[in-house]
Amino acid sequence: MSRLTTTIDLNSDLGEGFGRWELGDDEALLSIVTSANVACGFHAGDPTIMRRVCGTAVARGVAIGAQVGYRDLAGFGRRFIEVPPEALADDIVYQIGALDAFARLAGSRVGYVKPHGALYNAIVHHEAQAGAVVAAVRAYDPGLPVLGLPGSQWLRQAEAAGLTAVAECFADRAYTPQGTLVPRDRPGAVLRDPRLVAGRCLRMALGEPIEAVDGSPLTVRAASICVHGDSLGAVEMARGVRAALAAAGIDLAPFTGKAGR
Amino acid sequence: MSRLTTTIDLNSDLGEGFGRWELGDDEALLSIVTSANVACGFHAGDPTIMRRVCGTAVARGVAIGAQVGYRDLAGFGRRFIEVPPEALADDIVYQIGALDAFARLAGSRVGYVKPHGALYNAIVHHEAQAGAVVAAVRAYDPGLPVLGLPGSQWLRQAEAAGLTAVAECFADRAYTPQGTLVPRDRPGAVLRDPRLVAGRCLRMALGEPIEAVDGSPLTVRAASICVHGDSLGAVEMARGVRAALAAAGIDLAPFTGKAGR
Amino acid sequence: MSRLTTTIDLNSDLGEGFGRWELGDDEALLSIVTSANVACGFHAGDPTIMRRVCGTAVARGVAIGAQVGYRDLAGFGRRFIEVPPEALADDIVYQIGALDAFARLAGSRVGYVKPHGALYNAIVHHEAQAGAVVAAVRAYDPGLPVLGLPGSQWLRQAEAAGLTAVAECFADRAYTPQGTLVPRDRPGAVLRDPRLVAGRCLRMALGEPIEAVDGSPLTVRAASICVHGDSLGAVEMARGVRAALAAAGIDLAPFTGKAGR
Amino acid sequence: MSRLTTTIDLNSDLGEGFGRWELGDDEALLSIVTSANVACGFHAGDPTIMRRVCGTAVARGVAIGAQVGYRDLAGFGRRFIEVPPEALADDIVYQIGALDAFARLAGSRVGYVKPHGALYNAIVHHEAQAGAVVAAVRAYDPGLPVLGLPGSQWLRQAEAAGLTAVAECFADRAYTPQGTLVPRDRPGAVLRDPRLVAGRCLRMALGEPIEAVDGSPLTVRAASICVHGDSLGAVEMARGVRAALAAAGIDLAPFTGKAGR
Repeated sequence: MSRLTTTIDLNSDLGEGFGRWELGDDEALLSIVTSANVACGFHAGDPTIMRRVCGTAVARGVAIGAQVGYRDLAGFGRRFIEVPPEALADDIVYQIGALDAFARLAGSRVGYVKPHGALYNAIVHHEAQAGAVVAAVRAYDPGLPVLGLPGSQWLRQAEAAGLTAVAECFADRAYTPQGTLVPRDRPGAVLRDPRLVAGRCLRMALGEPIEAVDGSPLTVRAASICVHGDSLGAVEMARGVRAALAAAGIDLAPFTGKAGR
Repeated sequence: MSRLTTTIDLNSDLGEGFGRWELGDDEALLSIVTSANVACGFHAGDPTIMRRVCGTAVARGVAIGAQVGYRDLAGFGRRFIEVPPEALADDIVYQIGALDAFARLAGSRVGYVKPHGALYNAIVHHEAQAGAVVAAVRAYDPGLPVLGLPGSQWLRQAEAAGLTAVAECFADRAYTPQGTLVPRDRPGAVLRDPRLVAGRCLRMALGEPIEAVDGSPLTVRAASICVHGDSLGAVEMARGVRAALAAAGIDLAPFTGKAGR
Repeated sequence: MSRLTTTIDLNSDLGEGFGRWELGDDEALLSIVTSANVACGFHAGDPTIMRRVCGTAVARGVAIGAQVGYRDLAGFGRRFIEVPPEALADDIVYQIGALDAFARLAGSRVGYVKPHGALYNAIVHHEAQAGAVVAAVRAYDPGLPVLGLPGSQWLRQAEAAGLTAVAECFADRAYTPQGTLVPRDRPGAVLRDPRLVAGRCLRMALGEPIEAVDGSPLTVRAASICVHGDSLGAVEMARGVRAALAAAGIDLAPFTGKAGR
Repeated sequence: MSRLTTTIDLNSDLGEGFGRWELGDDEALLSIVTSANVACGFHAGDPTIMRRVCGTAVARGVAIGAQVGYRDLAGFGRRFIEVPPEALADDIVYQIGALDAFARLAGSRVGYVKPHGALYNAIVHHEAQAGAVVAAVRAYDPGLPVLGLPGSQWLRQAEAAGLTAVAECFADRAYTPQGTLVPRDRPGAVLRDPRLVAGRCLRMALGEPIEAVDGSPLTVRAASICVHGDSLGAVEMARGVRAALAAAGIDLAPFTGKAGR
């Protein structure tokens, strides 16, 4: 009799403070997730935070991902910037390289790349910027997987360029029947019931259908579930997701296939 | 009959523009020097400039050094900042890692570290900050040589920590009889006669004494001569130094012993 | 016999250096133009430069305008940023207030507002951002004129809001028969012949038609001519424009109607 | 029988967030203090925060002070920077001008200047930097009072320059018998008992002696008491101070003598 173990990854944005300013509970999240998207200093994060998060991540077997973004501390990387593609690629290489220094210090390496905020949203459709980020990753290390939205320019171009493109789903977001996210400004776009969220994550991890926003069944295929940690409630919700998955015997592990990478 | 070839390195600060702002003639300097101290974005330099300078440096066999500095674009890194040592070490690791990404893209690696401006001056005496920069280099790569002022805390602590500490001398600066630099605000501190400068460099490269500011003979031992390139005259002077050395049969090569590293 | 004196204003971007980095020849331009668009520190300019430019401007009877822009030193304000309107308005108020401090120190006041770079271009069409900049000016001082492209959202909304909207034309740009600028990437978009440019400026100042890009006559109505000063050639061209206007007996004076404001 | 009303001011640092990052509870503090030291964007604060804090301050009759600091977002202005005096003065003028724009929008004006962090500490002794900040205030508006540590270079030079120099005391800090602050790294330097703190503030407001760190009586003369608000406990402590003063019939009002200025 065969015994298959289902494995899923939990990723979250971490290291998003800057200097005196803290954001989210990195310490708590690093005990919950298996992949840490670490801010690299352009929209959030600073060298000291990067070193600390990398150190703890490695100690706990959490993979380190480069949370790259626009150069925009004032806007937290949440404002689209029409950066020319070549300059954007340079900015991305710079950020990955800087984070990799701290990952190496901690005995690991940057294991994947996940763009942040407005850049994440832009490269769902913006071909030139998507291409720039793909080119940057490929130039830095063609073995580096990239994480993002299924069907996005980002993942499609990454795949076409020979990179490993990994799809993620969202723990607390409603989906349309077509499998895209319900825009944040629509009612019901963000799910706030921890038990509902945990249950959906479990089904997504098992490959079972969840309910789309209209009630129809929808199967979301993803190797990683994105959870948030920027509020007390968010940390609790993420903890609940992890507990539900563990209780169901699902293996939680970095999608990169190796602890710390 | 034995034939000994004398070898010397010429280093210069490069890549010190930022965005729309240019500074110095990187292109010209990269045909003159053998080691490029490339600004890493904290006090000068940006990702696009870093990529370009690294690419040209590698193409011409010029070694790439990390010109690390305080986080101070507004002050060009020329103002002392009382950064706590641990945070300073993190800032240095970040900068080296970012530059190394571009050095790798160009097919090379960061080959050495030379602090810039107020940091360079501070760590002549400031033990805690000198120790922080040394710790950063050692943590990043204990095989990375460091370049600086003979007798400085920086080189002494580097050596004590097991790093290769390389002394540099200055093409256009007057020396005291004790071998320290005449402070910039003293008359005669900066030499402006290209032929005089070229002649001194030749003697320094050959290990022969130069004239200290009081006329007494002074032997300056250094594996690298620092030349400047931030004005038209400076580039011409640097070119004259190279020509004088070459004409005397002195071999010009990176002090790191390898082209591109 | 009536004798009418024609008056025209010459405006130019000034104070666009940052810290160690210089850009353009502020000193020369301040002897040519009658209105100085002074960068306010968000995309270029720093407090020391602002103080110096304001001081010289007032000494020479040059009006001080706030050259406001996106917060983007790395991109020199030339990259569109999707700043939410309210935040953009706050950024504009901040910049005007900061420049006004230096204008007051010099014995004058900020006399007008002219957005820069990507913001200038965006608010030709972007209603929300145009409205934000208008709201900022009005909140700061409803008596402050604004300078910009005829027919732009920026000038139309400014006028609708009760501000004095002043149209400018460009010394060195080709115009379509419809009176819009030929896009920079088209051949012939930028005029490089100083005599041609000076002649066109003279006709524009006199209200006489110039040749559009297709050769058809076009009358451009503007109270100010924008000249550039970011290269040696640009300064020479601006000087030629001023000389041609002066030789024709045209009065050069700030469009704000008062020296220093 | 004469009835004298004792009046005291409570000041606190406000508006110290930046973009996405929040710090302290501005809303709560603005119901407690009578003078708000508003960060001006160089070490903390951004235009949107400045507008909001000024608006609420004016609505509640709280005076607006310019919390000026070094240009150092990464260090929160807590690291000494050897800024040349002239450049420092320019930085200060810029910050006051920017804040004044928002104070005017809210129907008020910047009412005083209080340096922050490392600048506050530096100008206790650093004559050149103290002189630079004094020169900046005087150039901006010689009628603007300055707030600081009694006996500091800052207050002494301000007074000598004809500015109104106002001394502050600290609610939660231990004093030496000589009336200077016990350094933060000494045991007992920071008082944590809300009732003790409230009692000391009451005595300081009444001009009665408090206990110095060695138990000896010490009379601290100050027109303003500095309270903190960067933690939940700090807000509670500040509220307790206000309540104790009010209960004793002490009048709480801006030291500037006018609400909103």
